Amino acid sequence: MSLENVRIVLVEPLYGGNVGSVCRAMANMGIERLAVVNAPALDLEEVRRLACHAGEIFEQRRECATLAEAVADCVAVYGTSVRGGLYRRHSRTPREWASEILSGSDAGPVALVFGREDKGLTNDEIALCTRLIRIPSSDGYGSLNLSHAVMVCCYELFLRNGTFVPPVEKSAPARSGLRERMFAMWEDVLLSIGFMTPEKASHMMQGVRRILDRGAYTEDDVNIMMGVARQMAWARRRPPENE
Amino acid sequence: MSLENVRIVLVEPLYGGNVGSVCRAMANMGIERLAVVNAPALDLEEVRRLACHAGEIFEQRRECATLAEAVADCVAVYGTSVRGGLYRRHSRTPREWASEILSGSDAGPVALVFGREDKGLTNDEIALCTRLIRIPSSDGYGSLNLSHAVMVCCYELFLRNGTFVPPVEKSAPARSGLRERMFAMWEDVLLSIGFMTPEKASHMMQGVRRILDRGAYTEDDVNIMMGVARQMAWARRRPPENE
Repeated sequence: MSLENVRIVLVEPLYGGNVGSVCRAMANMGIERLAVVNAPALDLEEVRRLACHAGEIFEQRRECATLAEAVADCVAVYGTSVRGGLYRRHSRTPREWASEILSGSDAGPVALVFGREDKGLTNDEIALCTRLIRIPSSDGYGSLNLSHAVMVCCYELFLRNGTFVPPVEKSAPARSGLRERMFAMWEDVLLSIGFMTPEKASHMMQGVRRILDRGAYTEDDVNIMMGVARQMAWARRRPPENE
Repeated sequence: MSLENVRIVLVEPLYGGNVGSVCRAMANMGIERLAVVNAPALDLEEVRRLACHAGEIFEQRRECATLAEAVADCVAVYGTSVRGGLYRRHSRTPREWASEILSGSDAGPVALVFGREDKGLTNDEIALCTRLIRIPSSDGYGSLNLSHAVMVCCYELFLRNGTFVPPVEKSAPARSGLRERMFAMWEDVLLSIGFMTPEKASHMMQGVRRILDRGAYTEDDVNIMMGVARQMAWARRRPPENE
């Protein structure tokens, strides 16, 4: 699976800023093929300003006169729609379609089609689509900004494609034995500084454990907390500072 | 669970257009509480233009001088960061945090904090955050537009919150018996119009089934295909039209 065969198709977009933002969203999610249908009056300066470092996607775009031309070579065409209505009921969410889109793209280009900012896609354009995507949104205000709609779709494909590798914790997770040595050091020093009496120690340490023991510790974490205990012990043995 | 206690916090946003787009993204995903930290020079006309029908979210915003003030009453503070680096390694994706954010918001306000367009959050601001969010993005170009970052986070919360009800197919799924009656009608009419010979019928019908039988049919779908068969049969019995 790869994102190389995924093509974003914008039908008669009105605002250069939106087209630029679309390019940036695509680049952020590793999708690079753009087709623009019948948009001769775009403000190119706005496109480039909002594309930021993704201007190359716009420069490499395919320009087409009609949607039919833009998707003629595609093995599957997914249209986006916020409306329900007859013949639009078979729509599913981007998350639901993501697997099918990616596996389809093994066989050839797959288009994701986005309509005009003000009017979306016409019924004739919807008819060209083999599948419909409905982006989940609030009943109160369902209509997404064009670049936001593209972002949500690309984001779902990027995640499903599995190319994102989450940041790796470099410090190893602390084993129970190491954490217990840390708690033993804390118990000693909390006794020595008079934070608790020996009779109350066991009870108080339950509270301390509850506070310090939330979530998994790494070895780095344990080293920091052991350092605090050591320093407390050291400070306890020093003569008091003069005012 | 509800989205009422989710607060989007923008720290020193530079561009009114981004702030307006943030408001629209929030409204699209049913999230309404916005706090803006130290942004006295925002272009308010741009804010309102890009907010479209979500201007009310901006009008109802909380204005704060510092991030500390904006999150003082919050039970949990999630900071967004594209960078890794020391102390930023514990970050998780919005999808991974979504459940925790929503269950946390039962106890009080939960903040999602987004930094400046150019510099993100400072280390002091990151230190105020109890958790870090890292939005998955391409190694090639990882930095998202501010409103896109907000959209992805709000979208994940909206989906996890489960308030989105997908469009319902009103026609019942067709039972096997109904579909078989449809195929029988097609077989009859394809024979009668000479599309296939009786000897080839069983073989050809396998192909026809393979074409017509992709995905689940609804009763409406079956009715349409039965109508086509009926009409073919009717047309077959009519005298030929004059040229």
